[in-house]
Amino acid sequence: MGQTIAQKIFAAHLRDEPFDGTYVLDLDRVLCHEITTPVAIADLEWRGKDRVFDPSKIKAVIDHVTPAKDSKTAIQGKILREWAGRHEIPDFFDVGQNGVCHVLFPEKGFIRPGYTVIMGDSHTCTHGAFGAFAAGVGTTDLEVGILKGVCAFRKPASILVNISGQLQDQVVSKDVILNVIKQLGVNGATDHVIEFRGPVVDAMSMDARMTLTNMAIEAGGTCGICWPDQVTVDYLWPFISEEYASKEAALADFSKWHSDPDAEYDRVLDIDVTDLEPQVTYDYKPDCVKTAREMKDAPIDQVYIGTCTNGRLEDLQQAAEVLKGRKLAPGVRGILSPASPKIFREAMDQGILAIFMEAGFCITNPTCGACLGMSNGVLAPGEACAATSNRNFQGRMGQGGMVHLMSPATAAASGIKGVVTDPRDI
Amino acid sequence: MGQTIAQKIFAAHLRDEPFDGTYVLDLDRVLCHEITTPVAIADLEWRGKDRVFDPSKIKAVIDHVTPAKDSKTAIQGKILREWAGRHEIPDFFDVGQNGVCHVLFPEKGFIRPGYTVIMGDSHTCTHGAFGAFAAGVGTTDLEVGILKGVCAFRKPASILVNISGQLQDQVVSKDVILNVIKQLGVNGATDHVIEFRGPVVDAMSMDARMTLTNMAIEAGGTCGICWPDQVTVDYLWPFISEEYASKEAALADFSKWHSDPDAEYDRVLDIDVTDLEPQVTYDYKPDCVKTAREMKDAPIDQVYIGTCTNGRLEDLQQAAEVLKGRKLAPGVRGILSPASPKIFREAMDQGILAIFMEAGFCITNPTCGACLGMSNGVLAPGEACAATSNRNFQGRMGQGGMVHLMSPATAAASGIKGVVTDPRDI
Repeated sequence: MGQTIAQKIFAAHLRDEPFDGTYVLDLDRVLCHEITTPVAIADLEWRGKDRVFDPSKIKAVIDHVTPAKDSKTAIQGKILREWAGRHEIPDFFDVGQNGVCHVLFPEKGFIRPGYTVIMGDSHTCTHGAFGAFAAGVGTTDLEVGILKGVCAFRKPASILVNISGQLQDQVVSKDVILNVIKQLGVNGATDHVIEFRGPVVDAMSMDARMTLTNMAIEAGGTCGICWPDQVTVDYLWPFISEEYASKEAALADFSKWHSDPDAEYDRVLDIDVTDLEPQVTYDYKPDCVKTAREMKDAPIDQVYIGTCTNGRLEDLQQAAEVLKGRKLAPGVRGILSPASPKIFREAMDQGILAIFMEAGFCITNPTCGACLGMSNGVLAPGEACAATSNRNFQGRMGQGGMVHLMSPATAAASGIKGVVTDPRDI
Repeated sequence: MGQTIAQKIFAAHLRDEPFDGTYVLDLDRVLCHEITTPVAIADLEWRGKDRVFDPSKIKAVIDHVTPAKDSKTAIQGKILREWAGRHEIPDFFDVGQNGVCHVLFPEKGFIRPGYTVIMGDSHTCTHGAFGAFAAGVGTTDLEVGILKGVCAFRKPASILVNISGQLQDQVVSKDVILNVIKQLGVNGATDHVIEFRGPVVDAMSMDARMTLTNMAIEAGGTCGICWPDQVTVDYLWPFISEEYASKEAALADFSKWHSDPDAEYDRVLDIDVTDLEPQVTYDYKPDCVKTAREMKDAPIDQVYIGTCTNGRLEDLQQAAEVLKGRKLAPGVRGILSPASPKIFREAMDQGILAIFMEAGFCITNPTCGACLGMSNGVLAPGEACAATSNRNFQGRMGQGGMVHLMSPATAAASGIKGVVTDPRDI
């Protein structure tokens, strides 16, 4: 019987199988940020095991609240900073060099096809866009990962989401994944890897693919994963050009991380996106999804463009296309948080920041901030936000606030109109 | 007997003198931000007096924590926003249009020579740079100001600070005011207006003058004040060109706000700045001032450039001159907070933001944030910050943190070296 890409990665990293169906995998990457890692560090210290398995495989960033908003977050940052320093972790990203973890780490070339990746963060599944197995874990798993470089997972059953058809203008990967979550439900992929395939995925940039895989967890998925291909090679080439004689050689090597034709899936979801319209969530679960037109006239107090879901350059470009020459509706607050310093700089150099500012947006430094209600755009009770983020849980962006998830173009259009608006309708 | 400028403003605005030496003045401006005004609004509502004396004379901004960092600050912003809305206050500056109050309001042309200005903020004295009497007040005074458009002050005794000589290269108004505070002491100007005069002040831009007057309160002064002159006219011209036939006419009119030759001062401080060196504070009071060279090798964890003291374009340009082609020392975090959207945009267009980013700085949106330890750069215990702000009180930027006040150029030089550094020594 053939193997899925996830099964192949598991097989290549298997250290132990202590119980039937429990796989202890060697880890290629343990990613860390300042909210969850300090808890793990404190416990390792308390146990007298303040060590790291391999400093070169650990990457750390201060991203959730940065620069620090209070003494608590300042101390969290300091703990991570000092830990990175004493273990000589070379890739630690502090204020000025830091950005949203799931954007910054791929941008630095840290994620490769076939890798095993963990992090104490639920959207670690993002990194599966490179053909890696990447999963968010709790503190205990993170500690073991830091100390031993291993993590235990259950058997990686997979769901195949096969995406075909032709995306209409103004319909993007965010709309696709929102629709997938609508179909699967928030528990539909629990304990499963979601494998995204098909011509629509093949045609997507890495930025767009990361939006797909980022939200796998919102359907309960352990990881979202795409096959590495020419797009992957091109993205990673600056980082791998010394490892491979040519891009062709890299592509050939990467293709070992493709599922076999006879691999088995617990479920196959075939989606034709040809008629897919811009999608928007209502209510407090990410599978509560309607079309933007069905949601039209839902009021908006704030537009938030950024996050590990949609804070990349392509996202900013798509929003800027809608915003150009237009202004936010009176009373609507606009917040743009480019997800990394590189994206901030490129958006600045391309005139994208200027377009956002002329539309009336506030430009923040790169940070997770508003997405999880920790800084830079927390909602007051009764307010609603058009957000490009990934979670609309009750209170996520502030107690009593409502979050409508949508694409950057839909968020921009909604900001201009002051109500949820299909970007094709402005 | 002649009058000082402050006495002239008092005379022109006198509504009542209920007790000997207590003057009730008509107010031209009541300025509001989201930290202190909601308290006043709540009390006015509780008293059944939710009214404003004149919406056109009230200016309001969300600046201290913006975008909101938590539910509390989101609600503070919402209270101010809804209050401005229901009283039809035309000049309310929300997320995207907002900046540090003492930078934004002058930039909008709201402050004129001879005006009386209050705000529930200690650095309201900044606006005296335009030849206005501007004072920070408590909640009760703010409430009365909002409701009635008046405020009571004691007799405006003045201290004349006469500044002569020639500023050396890399020595700026921040160094002058730090030295003045050193000489006056933190209580030296209590209940007094500090009138800044002399050829050095005459040669200063409005940006530089606002740095002088901004810190009058750090010597206890009720207000810092400069005579309006050609520099003032040029700055305000875009806002007053329809009121005056010519700049000459404006200048002639403004000159009524000059002290008389025989005006009396409680104290005259003559300062020759020719030998003045870059100044830096030590310890936790703003009159604890040494030269940068005396302070050299004091360690720095963070550089913070921004605030109502030194977050203006000229300040950013001065820092950028030092930073250009250089990088922050390893382990030093750099934070630039341009003080208004206009300054952010001009700094972006002039390539200044790029210089800061290439040096390793994080660029935040315009906000007061780090200066008072409320967001965007709070220090952890044991950390020291080279800051262009105005207060080094214990815990000001975070419990257990040390703030060294200095000019933008000195802060930039200190960031590059990782220790306090005279900008002439790099």
